Parts: sequence; structure tokens; C-alpha cells
Amino acid sequence: MPPVTPLLDKVSYPRDMRGFNQAELRQLADELREEMIDVVSQTGGHFGAGLGVVELTVALHHVYETPEDILIWDVGHQTYPHKILTGRRDRIRTLRQGGGLSGFTKRSESEYDPFGAAHAATSISAALGFAAARDQAGKDNRVVAVIGDGSMSAGMAYEAMNNACETTGQLTVILNDNDMSIAPPVGGMSAYMARLVSGGGYQSLRNLGKSVAKVFPKPLQEAARKAEEYARGMVTGGTLFEELGFYYVGPIDGHDLDALVPVLRNVREIKDKPVLVHVVTQKGKGYAPAESAADKLHAVQKFDVITGQQAKSQPSAPTYTKVFAQELIRQAEKDAKIVAITAAMDSGTGLDLFAKRFPQRMYDVGIAEQHAVTFAAGLAADGMKPFCTIYSTFLQRGYDQVVHDVAIQGLPVRFAMDRAGLVGADGATHAGSFDIGFMGALPGMVLMAASDEAELVRMVATAAAIDDRPSAFRYPRGEGLGVEIPDPAQPLEIGKGRIVREGSAVAILSFGTRLSHSLKAADMLAARGLSTTVADARFAKPLDVELLLRLAREHEALITVEEGAIGGFGAFVLQELAAHGALDRGLKVRTLTLPDIFQDQDKPEAMYAQAGLDADGIVAGALAALGVDNVSAAGRRA
Amino acid sequence: MPPVTPLLDKVSYPRDMRGFNQAELRQLADELREEMIDVVSQTGGHFGAGLGVVELTVALHHVYETPEDILIWDVGHQTYPHKILTGRRDRIRTLRQGGGLSGFTKRSESEYDPFGAAHAATSISAALGFAAARDQAGKDNRVVAVIGDGSMSAGMAYEAMNNACETTGQLTVILNDNDMSIAPPVGGMSAYMARLVSGGGYQSLRNLGKSVAKVFPKPLQEAARKAEEYARGMVTGGTLFEELGFYYVGPIDGHDLDALVPVLRNVREIKDKPVLVHVVTQKGKGYAPAESAADKLHAVQKFDVITGQQAKSQPSAPTYTKVFAQELIRQAEKDAKIVAITAAMDSGTGLDLFAKRFPQRMYDVGIAEQHAVTFAAGLAADGMKPFCTIYSTFLQRGYDQVVHDVAIQGLPVRFAMDRAGLVGADGATHAGSFDIGFMGALPGMVLMAASDEAELVRMVATAAAIDDRPSAFRYPRGEGLGVEIPDPAQPLEIGKGRIVREGSAVAILSFGTRLSHSLKAADMLAARGLSTTVADARFAKPLDVELLLRLAREHEALITVEEGAIGGFGAFVLQELAAHGALDRGLKVRTLTLPDIFQDQDKPEAMYAQAGLDADGIVAGALAALGVDNVSAAGRRA
Repeated sequence: MPPVTPLLDKVSYPRDMRGFNQAELRQLADELREEMIDVVSQTGGHFGAGLGVVELTVALHHVYETPEDILIWDVGHQTYPHKILTGRRDRIRTLRQGGGLSGFTKRSESEYDPFGAAHAATSISAALGFAAARDQAGKDNRVVAVIGDGSMSAGMAYEAMNNACETTGQLTVILNDNDMSIAPPVGGMSAYMARLVSGGGYQSLRNLGKSVAKVFPKPLQEAARKAEEYARGMVTGGTLFEELGFYYVGPIDGHDLDALVPVLRNVREIKDKPVLVHVVTQKGKGYAPAESAADKLHAVQKFDVITGQQAKSQPSAPTYTKVFAQELIRQAEKDAKIVAITAAMDSGTGLDLFAKRFPQRMYDVGIAEQHAVTFAAGLAADGMKPFCTIYSTFLQRGYDQVVHDVAIQGLPVRFAMDRAGLVGADGATHAGSFDIGFMGALPGMVLMAASDEAELVRMVATAAAIDDRPSAFRYPRGEGLGVEIPDPAQPLEIGKGRIVREGSAVAILSFGTRLSHSLKAADMLAARGLSTTVADARFAKPLDVELLLRLAREHEALITVEEGAIGGFGAFVLQELAAHGALDRGLKVRTLTLPDIFQDQDKPEAMYAQAGLDADGIVAGALAALGVDNVSAAGRRA
Repeated sequence: MPPVTPLLDKVSYPRDMRGFNQAELRQLADELREEMIDVVSQTGGHFGAGLGVVELTVALHHVYETPEDILIWDVGHQTYPHKILTGRRDRIRTLRQGGGLSGFTKRSESEYDPFGAAHAATSISAALGFAAARDQAGKDNRVVAVIGDGSMSAGMAYEAMNNACETTGQLTVILNDNDMSIAPPVGGMSAYMARLVSGGGYQSLRNLGKSVAKVFPKPLQEAARKAEEYARGMVTGGTLFEELGFYYVGPIDGHDLDALVPVLRNVREIKDKPVLVHVVTQKGKGYAPAESAADKLHAVQKFDVITGQQAKSQPSAPTYTKVFAQELIRQAEKDAKIVAITAAMDSGTGLDLFAKRFPQRMYDVGIAEQHAVTFAAGLAADGMKPFCTIYSTFLQRGYDQVVHDVAIQGLPVRFAMDRAGLVGADGATHAGSFDIGFMGALPGMVLMAASDEAELVRMVATAAAIDDRPSAFRYPRGEGLGVEIPDPAQPLEIGKGRIVREGSAVAILSFGTRLSHSLKAADMLAARGLSTTVADARFAKPLDVELLLRLAREHEALITVEEGAIGGFGAFVLQELAAHGALDRGLKVRTLTLPDIFQDQDKPEAMYAQAGLDADGIVAGALAALGVDNVSAAGRRA
């Protein structure tokens, strides 16, 4: 039964709440929280972060003139309340589904989403861009960025903070400090923020907020500035941010609208230099099962609102992530030099399991992929065997470090690239589409993709054994096929693929988990009278040239299949075949890749079908190569 | 005439100077400086930074037990004095030449170079890796990173600083503060460091250093720690670094060995948490022409030691960099929405000229490529036309931002990618080898390469005109061909190449400045009786499919030529030809790319010859494709 939300029902857009008094804002926030709980109970998705910013969302849209004032949410997975208040309530139950609303902010979705965000720590840079554009055009809109404390471990946030005061006079950065991002916080900055909150300032400004509200119900600019300066004088700390050129305001209670609204009203008028407002919130606030959960229900399946019980999917097999982590533990039990590195994704990468077994051998560096990669390079340079475990999409953050610190020096860092290929509900921003190309182009790199979980464990063993150069292996999000896991896992022969099924007319050469779909496609082709070979390339670098040449020589058509963009595996295969003259006399060769668009979220298999990378798509690719359409192929079978 | 260096002549390795007293160290530093001036007067290269760290280099190798103690220099272009003291004096006059010493640190060159560095801000991350490896192995060597103040604008340095105290107890970061990197410093951090230096602490610790030296000629550990704590108590500031978990020591005079040596001795014994030693040096120190130059002679040609007069090369044409900047100025004169962004490379990218003309429309964000890209995305999202001008190799630092903030959102950021392809003396670390692949793989991107400077200005005009999606154009280091510059420059038709020379047997399809070499190759092939078409692709994305198919259809062989790695232009061409069935009936196609190794420094054309991308290499590629060896081709002509 949907919650009763009489006030929320009157608010389609922020303008509908601009005239609300404090009591109405409080009620709106409560209704908004109920609505959000109901929504996510039906859709699943990111949850704890959104619950924590309900009051902040209400206060920001109440105080600022969005969308003329620019409001940029970092990461954007906490914006379900924002979406409900900005014209999208009628579609909010389509979140993260095919054709539905994105789980993040998205420019194409609403003018209230001026900047899409799904990777962490982009908000201040983007906000500075908007601020600079405003200043260039002589406009006077405000620009606000809301960034979590977890994102403050990212170098990108620091780069932006370092530039803020030289770039503009008006920028407000709301530091949403809930003392955790997905995992517990990391590093000196986090400890610093904790000290700020634990100091005396927190309570005193909390009270101050109320008194400011009484004194300045409609603050004039000059009065507001005085109040703001007074407020700053009251609090301790903030020196670090002030040294970087910001006014520091806070910490203030992010669930107390009587503090939030007047402080934001005051801050809104400051135009002489950037302001950092340190807001303390509680992730999962206002929903008991979330408040009491260790991860504050960061992301959930559909759940029962009363009990908080989440729908359990029936896993048919362990996830690739878990299989990876378990094999890495097995390898580490045999070799004390193996250490693991994550960039704030310990449970996402399975390294929480590794850390349980080897607490001293796992490094969580925060949202800091640049550092993660070069730190791993340093470890490798001194003889350790680091497994740098980063989602494909986030490794893009450390690309220069992979090139400059790892590959050029030939250091044996092992890159475990989780979430390779399409990822489903998280959509285009989280797809691991480009790593085959950007890693495979690097001289000396060994690049593998697992076709199933048994292959994955062998690739972990292979990477552990490769001690004279960098290596990388990719594997997808989600469950494996349920095949038996070899134990102990034998390392693979470097640069050697394998033929999985012998045929004569068509060869399908698969790199990664499209292998099972390739085998299905082979069955379908065989049923049409087209005898089909299927090979598992295993390596995109070094390529198995012997295998390539044999497939090219012995078949009329060669189809490569990969879960990646152009310029990747298929491209390398073509360049190698060309170099050996294997295209000189004709080969019906097609490279099936992800399409040249950014695909919106949907179920992964629906996205792969759209991409033409399911069995039907592979069959269609083969038939097109052979110049056979479906009808005549059917005839050929008959 | 080489300088007289009696003490330096006795020092082949740091062990030879460990027993020196302060007077001897002073003399050694003076001789080392003379030697360095003499060396660079003959070789050219990076100069001002090395002059500034002569005393620091002497002090570090005197106090620390290198190479067991790990000493990592950030960027590494200031390590000529270090190289002279660590067994490489006999080869020091081969710096930056083919087969000679690298201009940066390089692991393969010396055990005193534990980590290669040429891009900025990697040193603390790498040092933490060494520290963690040491801690894992239970060893007790020290780890020291020397990082310049310019590098502190990079997010990567912050990420490492943020992790330091959680990762290890022993790490020394020497902040070498010379108040400039290549360009004047940027940002809040730089202003903060300036305040530290301008405070009272600098002088008092300078004196303190001397007194410490008297009190503790051979400091014992406990006494040393007390002295260190005393020293810290004496100075003002450093709060920002202390908030991140470091002990802060400084600022101290980096040319005063009587201060440096005892402070380093004390710091060496600290093992309970990382220490940041703030050392103030003067870039170009001790050589009058460098001290008085605006850029402190950051990098020089060969010069006369007495006058400081540099050898002038006779430019035959303006550089691509300058041509780009001048055209961007012309475009900006017509369009007030054009702004330019550089990441600490204002003169390197020519944007110093732009800034002179439009001081309010150029943003130098410091060594902060991640921020630069997303900042540009924010500008574009609010209707500006940002030209984000970054060397190809450094754009690797902002790759995720290109993907996530620019390409996925389809924002019209213009990427001007200078230093594309091989760069000569700076070697592998600075080569722009991978951008064709990593940019061309992105849906919606327009990717161009200029074949000469006239084409470059048209590409600037084209990028200015593309307002509905991101675009990028690449151009090399060095001088153009001297062709006439069109004014006004007409934008190109998107996705259309051009045929430059018509032939019938072989087609050479060039992307970038190999075009002139392709034309020369065509002459050579024609002289052998092989009529050769040459086309300038202009676009790697979108490809000119019509042109590709025509070249494939009308020629026996197709050779693609590019200044980039595998997985780039040639790969895209092959995938496109395959998709259109243009390989089905045979095409002698070869993709000439950079080789699958990281090439060491040499003159650019020597490197391209090694790569098989000069005219001879292109001819050889064409003949191999045709199955004609040189001899029989000669016969064919006859």
C-alpha cells in the first residue's frame, strides 16, 4: 500500500515548495522519505545514501532557484529523493529498469540534472565548469556541488578544490559527511573530518542554526554575510579547507532543517570566495532496518517495507567475483608475496573475503585508482606480487599509471578487472567496454578474459605465475555457469587459446564469457547445415597466432566475439591476420563487438541482445558473413 | 674546457662520500654544480630543476644508505646530479641521445633508480609501495620520495598523502618547494605553501639547523627524535600536512647543507609515522643566467657556459603547437564562447599566446588532468566552447573523465592533443602512442589527425564548429612542413578524407603527419612501376567508409599508416572493411603502426625509421603486402 503523502502530492517541481514554512518542509521531508522507502522496496537499487539526504534535498531545492541555480550531485546514486521532487515521481518506479529512469543523474532525463554523475568525485570539477561559464557570461546563478566524504579520498576532488578559489568567487560545496561511502572511510582526510565533527563545534552550530533562523527569517544579503561570518567564528577546525581558499561552515546537522535552511540561505549570498558547508548526515536515516545494517543498506534488492527483508534471488552459481576472491586466497596461502589492492570496493571486488583471511595483506586505498595502480607498481618493483583489483570502468581512472608506471617499466602488477562488459542496471557509466583496447595496446601486457569460472581461477593462477611483466584478466559481473572449479588451478600456457568445438565451415573465436553463447550459436548454425568451430581465445595479448592462422585457413568465415568496444580483441586479430597475409586471398571475417553507442541500462542479456552479441546475434553475424540470409540458410538445412 | 673537480673525481658512487665532513660536502656540491653546468651546456636538456637540487642530492646520498634505502625522484628530470653521483658520470654526456642515458630516472639504467618517473606526482605512491613491501618483508630500509611543489597540484599526490599514514610508519616525503614547476604555480595548495615559507619559521629553522648540527654531530636515535620534535615546535604552520597524518618539518633552506644534513639525519630515524620535510630551493641556483631567466632555464639547448647563450636551431617552419595556438586565437576572436584549458603546460601547448590575447579566457588548472577534463565538460554543459589542450601522453591521466563526463554525455569538449606520436629525446614516457585507440573507441567522438599545419588549422576550425558532440584532433611535436596557412580556415566535412595522389596498384591511407612520408613512399613505389594512390584519412572517427571501400575495391593492396599503437586507426579501418565484406574476396591489407615495444629515446625520425614508419618502411610494407621483394620490384620496373 503506497504511503499517504498529502503534501508531497502537491509538489511536482521545486517551485511548488519554495513558499513552504519550516513545518511544511519538515512534513515534506517525512513524506518524501516514506515515498522513497516505498519506491525502493519495489525497484531495489541504491538506498542508504538517498535516505541520508532527504532533508538536504528538500533544503537545497527550497533555498536555491533550481534549475537556474545549478545543483550537481556527486555519484548521483543518492538522487532518488531529488528525482521525486523534480518532475519524475510518476516514473520513479521504473528506476534502473530498461527504458526507465537512470539510477544516477542524467542530463537527458531532466533539466534538474545539469550534469550526469555515476563515478565518484566529479562534482566539484563540473561545478567549477558551470561557475566559470556563468562568470564568462556575466550571469548570476548559483552553483552548488554535493559531495560525499568518501569522494574526498579521490585526487580529482582535491584537484578541483585546489582550483576553486582561482576559478570563481561563487561556488558552494556541500560536504555530505556520513562517515562512509560504500565501505568504511580511508585515509588522513577522513580522520581529519572525523576530528572536525567530534570537536565542540558541531553542537554549537547546531544550536546556532536555530538562532540564525529566528534572527533572519528572510535574511538580507549583508545581514546574512554577518551571520555567516559569525557562524564560522563559532566553530572549531576547518583549517585544512580554509588553507585551500574556502570559507568553511560547519559541521551542521544534515537532518535538522532548522539548521540547514538558514545556513544555506546565508551561504547562498556569498560571492567573494567558495564556501564549503560541512553537513553531517546518517546513511540510512529514518528507516530502522537501514540504520541498523552494517552497510546502511547501501544497495538493496526489492524488500518488505515492514520487515526490511530483501527478496532473495536464487543464485544458480557463485559469482565471478567470489570465485576470483576464493582463488586469490588459495594462491596467497601458497605465496606470501601476494597482496591485494582495492580502491574503496572491498566487497564489490570480493577482497573483503581476502582481507578476512589476510588482514595485513589487503590495502584499501579509498577512491584513488591513480594511487592504487602506482602503489601496486611500487610493491611489484620491490618484489611483491600485487593483485590490483579494480572494476574495468574505474581502471580508466588509473590508465596513465598503467601505462607509465607499470607497462613501460614492465613491472609484474596483476590487474583483476571485474565488471568487464555490460553490467545491467548501472547502465553506460559502469559498463566495462574499453579495457580490451586500452590494455591490449600496451607493449608487454598479458591480457586474458575468462570464458567461465573455471577459466577464471586458471587465469588467477596464471597471473600469479607471471613474474616478468604486467598481466590483466577480465571477468564479468554476476553469476558464473556453475562449472566445476579446478583445485589446484593449473596456470595457462601464455598466449595459447583452445578449440572447444570442431567444425569446418565457420569459426567463432570468442574472447570472454560470450563463449557459451558462441557454442549455442554453433548449435544453431549446425542445425542449418553449417559446421561450426568454436574457439576460446583466452588471450587478447599475446595472441595465439597459430590458432588464428589455422582458423582462417580452414574456414570460409571467421567471427570474433567479445564483450568490448571496437579497437579491441577483434581489431587485434584482424591486424595480426593482415600482417601474416591471411586476408590476402579473402576471408569472410567479422568482428562482433559492443555497438558504437553508449547503451542505456537494461537486463544484461537484453543489452547483449541489442548489441548483437547473444546467440541469435552471433548466428546473424555468421550468416551475413557467408552471404546467407536466414531463409536461405533454413533452405540449406532442408 | 671541463671544470676542475678534484673531490667529485673521487666519488663514483654515494658510498665514496658517506664519510665526508660538512666542508667536503660543500665542496662536492660546488663541483657537482660545475659539472652539471658543463654537461648540459653540451647536451641540452632539463637544467634549472637539477641546479636547484644539487645540495639536496648530495645531502640525501650522504645521509641515506642508497641504494638499499629507496630514493624516488618525482618526474626525474632533476636527476642529472643524482646520475653523476651514482655511477653514470662517464655516460652523462650521452643524456637524452639515442643509445644514451635517459633524461629521467630509469630502472634499467641503475639500481639507484628504483622507480622510473617522467610524468609528475607518481613518487609518493611508488614510495608507499616500496614502504609496504619493506614492511611486509620485515626489512628496515628507509624510503624517501622527493616531490616538487608543482606536483602537489596533482590529485595523485593527494591520494598518496591521504594513504600514507595508514600504509606505513616510515616514509619521508621531501617537498622540494621552488615555487614553480614549469609554469608559475596554481591553486590553493601553492598559496598555502607560500604562506608557510613567508612565515617566521623559515629563518628560525634555518638557524636551528646549524645549532642542531653542533649539538648532534652524530645523533643517536633518541636524541635525534627529540631534536626533530624540537624543530617542529619551532616552526609555524604545516597544519594541513599534519592534519593528513604527517609530521611536518620545515621550511628549511635546501641549499644550506648545514641545515639539510642534520635535519635529514634526524628524520631518517623516525619510524612511527610519515614525515614531510619542506625544503625551499631556488630553481637555477648557482648559475647566473638561469637564476635571472623567467623560466629559470627549465629546459635548454646546448649553450655557452660563460654567456649562457643557447645554440639556436634554425626553424624551417613554425611548430604545430604555435600554429594551433594562433588559429585558436583567430577562432576566439570570432567567438566569445571559446575558452582554453591547460594542465600546467601553458607554454608547451602554446596557450601562453592565447592567454596573452585573452587573459580571462584561459584556465591553467595545474598538473590536474582529471579536473581539466571534467571542468571542460562543465563549461561545455553550460554552453561554452572549451578547448582542452593536453599532450596525448598526459591525457591518459584524464581518460575516465573523457569517457564518463564528456563522451557518455555527448558534451562538445574539444580535445587538442599535442605531442601525438613519437617525441624524440623525452622517450617512451612522453610518446603519444595510444590516444587514437583510446579516444577512437568512444561512441560519438570525432577524432582527427593533422597531416600538415594547414590541415591543423582547418581541424581547429572544425572542432570549433562541432557543437553537438565531443571532438579531438592530434598533432605532433616539432615543426610543420612550412605550408601556407589558410586564413580564414574552412571547417572540414566531418568524416571525409581526401585523395592526395591517384594511382592504381597500391593505396596508402595515412592518418596524420606520415602523409609526407607516404607521398615519398609513393614516389619510390612508382619508380618501381607500382602506381600508388595516397589518401589523407583526416578522420579516424567517423571513418570515411566510401573512401575506404573505394580504395579497397580499386587497389590490389591497401596500407594504412599512423603514428600510434595497434588498436587504433588501422584497426578501425579493418573492422569497418570487414563489416562491409570488403575483405571477403581478398585484399592485401597491412596496418603500419608503432611497434609493440616501448621505444627508447632518439631523434624522432630515427625512431620512426625503427618503427618502419618512414618512407622506406612504408615501401617495405607495400612490397611485402604485394609479395614482391625489393629485388624483384626493381626487376618489375626494369
